[in-house]
Amino acid sequence: MKNFEFYNPVKIYFGKDEIDKLSEILIPYKKIMFAYGQGSIKENGIYNQITEQLKNYNYVEFAGIEPNPSYETLMKAVKIARKEQVDFILAVGGGSVIDGVKFIAAAVKYTNRDPWEILSKQIEITDAIKIGTVLTLPATGSEMNGTSVISKYATKEKLAFGSPLLMPVFSILDPQTIKSLPDIQIANGIVDAYVHVIEQYLTYPSDAKVQDKFSESLLKILIEIGQELLNDRNNYELNANFMWTATMALNGLIATGVPTDWSTHLIGHEITALHGIDHAQSLAIVLPGVMQVMKEDKQDKIIQYAKEVFNIYNADNEETIKSAIVKTEEFFKSLGIKTKLSDYNIDETITKIIPQRLKERRYLKLGENKNITPDIVEKILKIRL
Amino acid sequence: MKNFEFYNPVKIYFGKDEIDKLSEILIPYKKIMFAYGQGSIKENGIYNQITEQLKNYNYVEFAGIEPNPSYETLMKAVKIARKEQVDFILAVGGGSVIDGVKFIAAAVKYTNRDPWEILSKQIEITDAIKIGTVLTLPATGSEMNGTSVISKYATKEKLAFGSPLLMPVFSILDPQTIKSLPDIQIANGIVDAYVHVIEQYLTYPSDAKVQDKFSESLLKILIEIGQELLNDRNNYELNANFMWTATMALNGLIATGVPTDWSTHLIGHEITALHGIDHAQSLAIVLPGVMQVMKEDKQDKIIQYAKEVFNIYNADNEETIKSAIVKTEEFFKSLGIKTKLSDYNIDETITKIIPQRLKERRYLKLGENKNITPDIVEKILKIRL
Repeated sequence: MKNFEFYNPVKIYFGKDEIDKLSEILIPYKKIMFAYGQGSIKENGIYNQITEQLKNYNYVEFAGIEPNPSYETLMKAVKIARKEQVDFILAVGGGSVIDGVKFIAAAVKYTNRDPWEILSKQIEITDAIKIGTVLTLPATGSEMNGTSVISKYATKEKLAFGSPLLMPVFSILDPQTIKSLPDIQIANGIVDAYVHVIEQYLTYPSDAKVQDKFSESLLKILIEIGQELLNDRNNYELNANFMWTATMALNGLIATGVPTDWSTHLIGHEITALHGIDHAQSLAIVLPGVMQVMKEDKQDKIIQYAKEVFNIYNADNEETIKSAIVKTEEFFKSLGIKTKLSDYNIDETITKIIPQRLKERRYLKLGENKNITPDIVEKILKIRL
Repeated sequence: MKNFEFYNPVKIYFGKDEIDKLSEILIPYKKIMFAYGQGSIKENGIYNQITEQLKNYNYVEFAGIEPNPSYETLMKAVKIARKEQVDFILAVGGGSVIDGVKFIAAAVKYTNRDPWEILSKQIEITDAIKIGTVLTLPATGSEMNGTSVISKYATKEKLAFGSPLLMPVFSILDPQTIKSLPDIQIANGIVDAYVHVIEQYLTYPSDAKVQDKFSESLLKILIEIGQELLNDRNNYELNANFMWTATMALNGLIATGVPTDWSTHLIGHEITALHGIDHAQSLAIVLPGVMQVMKEDKQDKIIQYAKEVFNIYNADNEETIKSAIVKTEEFFKSLGIKTKLSDYNIDETITKIIPQRLKERRYLKLGENKNITPDIVEKILKIRL
């Protein structure tokens, strides 16, 4: 096991009607920004629940944070937050809204230069407005970590940043909020959470037994409940299990003491930035390619994964690895998520463009062994056409 | 899944030589109390490591916190801490030292009346000195939670209390510190961690998939590494896995959204208070009795436990339950921990004394269903003679 530090002070309120605690939780704050997405919370009643809780507070609304939240949109919120002297931002939504709010929280305090530098130059955050969340879409784990991914339309970029200062003070997870989500968002959420676990698990062995078994647990749960979730959107217990699994998939716990990969995400972000496909769709395309091309580096863990998650026992390692990759891709397809570039009408020019973009960005060595060069990214993309 | 709140802001520093960060971590504090146990840290070099880190600090030492830390000993530390205006207590040791320091931290601020009331009257803690820990014995999980168990010699009592204010600000877990521990302390630690998981798992089903699978993971790891740990005390990886497993067993995570039992602990505390046997030994005696007597309440989970942890598949539920109880007791014995009252020369008078003490203390309804009355405790103890 590698040395590690672990610190996660996010307070979780989980369960039915926990949103009703919001008015009490917010007592320390004077001027709140209530930020949300493109209005679905007005249709499912959550907007009314929140404004009811906020009725005795001084607050401003900021609506319209889009999927793959953009610098352009968020900078409008930054202006308002500065003008209104907001001291707390409440994010109500999924990972996009929460990630967006993390950017607003940091950017408001980054006053001397263009806040996009926080991402492009990976500036260390030294100050940020406090944030809290009401999660309405399990997927990204953003509700219990300090990281965020932001897109910039002008340059078609999608970059990540993070800081412990951006961990929400609290996150409210009420599984009732997700029963009206469309199938595609549930399927995306399952795939996203699944690949989060894989990025922290499918590397090389580091004899971290708790972390391995916890990761395998999360993967098995997602496989167990994935189809059921899509078939039975009104099942509170299923929604609750999905919600807590997705949070645990990326709150830092399973990353303690182990190597992590994240190449699937970095490559996937480029696909989304260029072609606008959903984040989870990009992951479902890339992951089988990473597993295939990097199978020698990852073989011990792929074999463990095959055995523990899919009950594949085969004396032939090559066959076991092949089966594990097939099973992974089949799982994504079973949820209705397509896994090839051509499924999204993306042609082979991308296999050159993305390596080129990674070079420009000096992302020359991805993966747990820092050996996924732009040339290897090209190989990965070629087998996903 | 039940509604829950989860909040654990303890910062963990885990791994080789993490103790070297101590001098930096302690910067915010002005007057430190360095508290430890009965001197084993002077033999294994940890004392020197700590004083090296403290050399530029203003600190007082408090030595002599005993296993099952006592009110009598701790009140001496409370006097010193008040006089010296200590603003931080560093606990270096196992669960006893850490639990003891939690009492000191709360008692120092409880100035108007006898601090024993914090336990006897379960007074809510509203203020406490901040604490941090360097863990040298994995077992209790006290390094990552806010609870504590204190004994009082005068009345032969052993009681628990807790508060989020008593969570350590940080805990340093260096697996190197445990390589010189005697076998009995390792065996006790394994049993203690195991029973912690069981108290939060072996109740009734509440469809909490993450919590169940995480609990099963921890139990399986303890079984997998238990014997190896005793055979190979110098194995860093084994020690690291044991240390992190024991912490995860009682940091609140696996208790989220599920019922918990804790009757084995409450009954075990009485045995220790009366006869001075080790905490883990008392648990190893009581748990098989609780499983046997409460098997109807617990049957669904015992069957799940049998299957997931011991791979017992038997069409006959009665047989499955029996096997699970036998396997549990055998595991404790395999570590050298005896499991009957008579093994410790405790006679049958205890089967009357403990129910009587529980009545006096108004502990009339233990367990996840609040149906373990003093009469049932008598039954449990009788089958453990």
